[in-house]
Amino acid sequence: MKSAEELKEKLFLITKDKRFEFSMMSVIIFSALVIGVHTFNIDPMLEQILLYVDYLITVIFVIEISVRIAAEKKVSDFFKDGWNVFDFIIVAVSIIPIDENYANVARLIRIFRMLRLITLLPELKVIIGALFKSAKSIGYVMILMFIIFYVFAVVGTILFENMESGLWRDVGIALLTLFRVMTFEDWTDVMYETMEVYPWSWAYYLLFIFLTTFTFLNMIIGIILDTLNEEHKKVEKESVDEEKLIMREILEKNTILEIKLDRLEKLLSEKFRI
Amino acid sequence: MKSAEELKEKLFLITKDKRFEFSMMSVIIFSALVIGVHTFNIDPMLEQILLYVDYLITVIFVIEISVRIAAEKKVSDFFKDGWNVFDFIIVAVSIIPIDENYANVARLIRIFRMLRLITLLPELKVIIGALFKSAKSIGYVMILMFIIFYVFAVVGTILFENMESGLWRDVGIALLTLFRVMTFEDWTDVMYETMEVYPWSWAYYLLFIFLTTFTFLNMIIGIILDTLNEEHKKVEKESVDEEKLIMREILEKNTILEIKLDRLEKLLSEKFRI
Amino acid sequence: MKSAEELKEKLFLITKDKRFEFSMMSVIIFSALVIGVHTFNIDPMLEQILLYVDYLITVIFVIEISVRIAAEKKVSDFFKDGWNVFDFIIVAVSIIPIDENYANVARLIRIFRMLRLITLLPELKVIIGALFKSAKSIGYVMILMFIIFYVFAVVGTILFENMESGLWRDVGIALLTLFRVMTFEDWTDVMYETMEVYPWSWAYYLLFIFLTTFTFLNMIIGIILDTLNEEHKKVEKESVDEEKLIMREILEKNTILEIKLDRLEKLLSEKFRI
Amino acid sequence: MKSAEELKEKLFLITKDKRFEFSMMSVIIFSALVIGVHTFNIDPMLEQILLYVDYLITVIFVIEISVRIAAEKKVSDFFKDGWNVFDFIIVAVSIIPIDENYANVARLIRIFRMLRLITLLPELKVIIGALFKSAKSIGYVMILMFIIFYVFAVVGTILFENMESGLWRDVGIALLTLFRVMTFEDWTDVMYETMEVYPWSWAYYLLFIFLTTFTFLNMIIGIILDTLNEEHKKVEKESVDEEKLIMREILEKNTILEIKLDRLEKLLSEKFRI
Repeated sequence: MKSAEELKEKLFLITKDKRFEFSMMSVIIFSALVIGVHTFNIDPMLEQILLYVDYLITVIFVIEISVRIAAEKKVSDFFKDGWNVFDFIIVAVSIIPIDENYANVARLIRIFRMLRLITLLPELKVIIGALFKSAKSIGYVMILMFIIFYVFAVVGTILFENMESGLWRDVGIALLTLFRVMTFEDWTDVMYETMEVYPWSWAYYLLFIFLTTFTFLNMIIGIILDTLNEEHKKVEKESVDEEKLIMREILEKNTILEIKLDRLEKLLSEKFRI
Repeated sequence: MKSAEELKEKLFLITKDKRFEFSMMSVIIFSALVIGVHTFNIDPMLEQILLYVDYLITVIFVIEISVRIAAEKKVSDFFKDGWNVFDFIIVAVSIIPIDENYANVARLIRIFRMLRLITLLPELKVIIGALFKSAKSIGYVMILMFIIFYVFAVVGTILFENMESGLWRDVGIALLTLFRVMTFEDWTDVMYETMEVYPWSWAYYLLFIFLTTFTFLNMIIGIILDTLNEEHKKVEKESVDEEKLIMREILEKNTILEIKLDRLEKLLSEKFRI
Repeated sequence: MKSAEELKEKLFLITKDKRFEFSMMSVIIFSALVIGVHTFNIDPMLEQILLYVDYLITVIFVIEISVRIAAEKKVSDFFKDGWNVFDFIIVAVSIIPIDENYANVARLIRIFRMLRLITLLPELKVIIGALFKSAKSIGYVMILMFIIFYVFAVVGTILFENMESGLWRDVGIALLTLFRVMTFEDWTDVMYETMEVYPWSWAYYLLFIFLTTFTFLNMIIGIILDTLNEEHKKVEKESVDEEKLIMREILEKNTILEIKLDRLEKLLSEKFRI
Repeated sequence: MKSAEELKEKLFLITKDKRFEFSMMSVIIFSALVIGVHTFNIDPMLEQILLYVDYLITVIFVIEISVRIAAEKKVSDFFKDGWNVFDFIIVAVSIIPIDENYANVARLIRIFRMLRLITLLPELKVIIGALFKSAKSIGYVMILMFIIFYVFAVVGTILFENMESGLWRDVGIALLTLFRVMTFEDWTDVMYETMEVYPWSWAYYLLFIFLTTFTFLNMIIGIILDTLNEEHKKVEKESVDEEKLIMREILEKNTILEIKLDRLEKLLSEKFRI
């Protein structure tokens, strides 16, 4: 039983080794390149070789994840970290045997292995974490944005339903058209078409652009301010903490002075009064 | 008379109930979905059903607002809150009977019910409040922007009046064309057309783009700074207030020290002088 | 002589009157509207009326500026303020008699009267001042931007000189084409054309876009930081100044304590030593 | 030997002379203009003259750099500053004799002389330094961005490989197409084409736009925050340092008070106890 634990420890050291991480990173990047090369018209011979290379990469991935699971004291410990689950799913899915007729599906699955780069680079994990955090803080603005979009989309379908371009056919397509307008992508083409029937429809577009741009700007500013305030409080606290330290020292010193004065007073009163 | 007040209290508790708010939210979202479904080509049967569903939703809305009004001590209290007035108008307008020939108008009115989501989600009210506030702070920049637009529009109509595309026909259309240029939407098409007649007209466009982009940027920065300063002052005040508390304590201690010293001196001089 | 001075004082009070300013603002806006109406196809009768209205507005402008000059103690005082000079030039230019054949020139000159709104609204003066200030702070970034543009323009003319579209004919047109690329306006059309001859030319465009976008972003961030720091220092100073006041008070108190202790010591040593 | 050192000193003073720097700047700008003029169709006579002017400029550049090298105590000192190496390479490359058949290459090399403006204007060096610094701080976000691009590009080639436009032919072109979509350049054209075959492909584009825009925004905010925090800490430190100075003074004063009290106590106890 002891050898098992020793083995676990050894495996753990291996998984935390910089060289181990570095070689895994190389394998992932190489794997991504292989899939990239696949997208070019290539020699059938090369394609055959790439297929074998791909099998090899899959095997390496399976070994790596097995080692990492084996290195944990309990298998369940491994799955406590969300990123490990993420890794496991990516590897697990890529070893599902897929019929040759669905070669594209297999390739699609394999490219997602590249996302494992994120779990290997701690800095990327930090960035992803920050993204999720700011995504949460803009949740309600997104709801407001969607309300604006939906109301404008319905109004658009009611007013411009019969446009020849079919850009306002139903509420789904209208939402897509509005997103296009919001990105300023040939939005005047959309507008000029409806202005021929409804000369005043420019007001609809301008109002939409103003509302969404303004809401979008406020969202960005909101993210900036949120992050800034948090950071600011930290910095502020630090420098202020130092100040407080000195102040406390002063306060302490003053208390000592008080005690000494009291002692002196007592001494004097003892001498003179009694 | 007492039972009436009791009823009012009961109704008030109902309106503040999370479940009540949640079911109203569901009704609003469902109502928005129904209007969305209407925009697709649908079976006449389904359309008939949707019509009845719509009647039902209108009835629910009327009941909900009646309950909320009844829950207030005085009816006039209900209308003191701007958001309540907003709700009331939306519901009131949607029960106006509209001739079947104006079905589109009826649908237009009904989609605005979706805006009631805003009054149900307090977070959205906060965001809207923030939007209004930053809108106010950019009022004068908007005036400046409009002056730039108007001057350029008139100059544009004078110079490029006879362009075939008709983009500079009158000051209204020229304003729209300039807004298009500002969003960079095929602005070179506009410019290349006038450059064929006036080879130097690129200066007009570049000057316009520089002026508006620069003013726009300064507006954004203005909003960021305004909000930031306000937040900053709050944070600053808080942390500084704490510091001041310690300082005041020190000052107090020093005053005590002074008093004690004075007493000591008095004691000594009494003993030795007299 | 006295009546002259009294008159001056009266005139001065008139020019500072809110109603005077408000009516001048109305005249300016009305004048801008008149020029705007001119851009539509209008009835010759109305045009004739507008012409007279225009004469009237010019007369009002001349009277207003005369009153403001007369209200000053010395005429030269009036021209000490840059904004007054600005007003004077606009009015002076608009009364130059212009041949009817150059009606457009006359209209061009008249629209610039609208800029007088800026001198009437102090808030706009403040914004303009802020714009000038931030314009100064980005001067060197603009030089850097121009160097990037110029180098890329020359490289572009050398490589893509013979493109059919003529977008790289000479360095002037190449600069305009690059500005178009920077605004993302149909930039892929420009790129796809050169990629047919030079398949690797996408690198040229991507490098240009990355460099300019990155420089532009840093410029914006620069403005934000500059303004922010200035504001920040002010706020910081204020709150810190208050803290220092308390600190100084503490220091003073301590000095008093020291003096008292010294006096006490002196008293005691006098009594016991001598 | 002494005259050599005196000469060095003289040369050093010359190179630091404002007039020297100013004339070099003029030569660089003039040189850039000459290359700019070359891009227009010009008279063969003028071209000949420009060629001689160009030789002259090259000679001036060589002299200038020689003087600057000669002014240093050791030649190797000159190459310790990266900017000097930059200058040297630009001048060195431009004196390489180039066959007349490669006139364009010669012109390409010569335009890079303009970059020497950067080494002459210290403010530009500061800006470039800031750019490099913020470029470093966004390194990992760029990696994340590239992962997103690569995954989407491979998915795009697998799904949309056979589009007629050839925008998804291989992973390289797909990356370029995605960059185009990210700049919103006619991205709906790309989308509408694939939507005809895969009606749900709008989800692919929207997801891509959301992910990249969001990552991009966070990158900008990251730069702002980084720079801001650094600046902030500096300002904070300064103002706080001043506060600490006063605090230290208070602390010192308190220590003096303590010592004096101790002395007094000792004096009294000596008198009364012994």
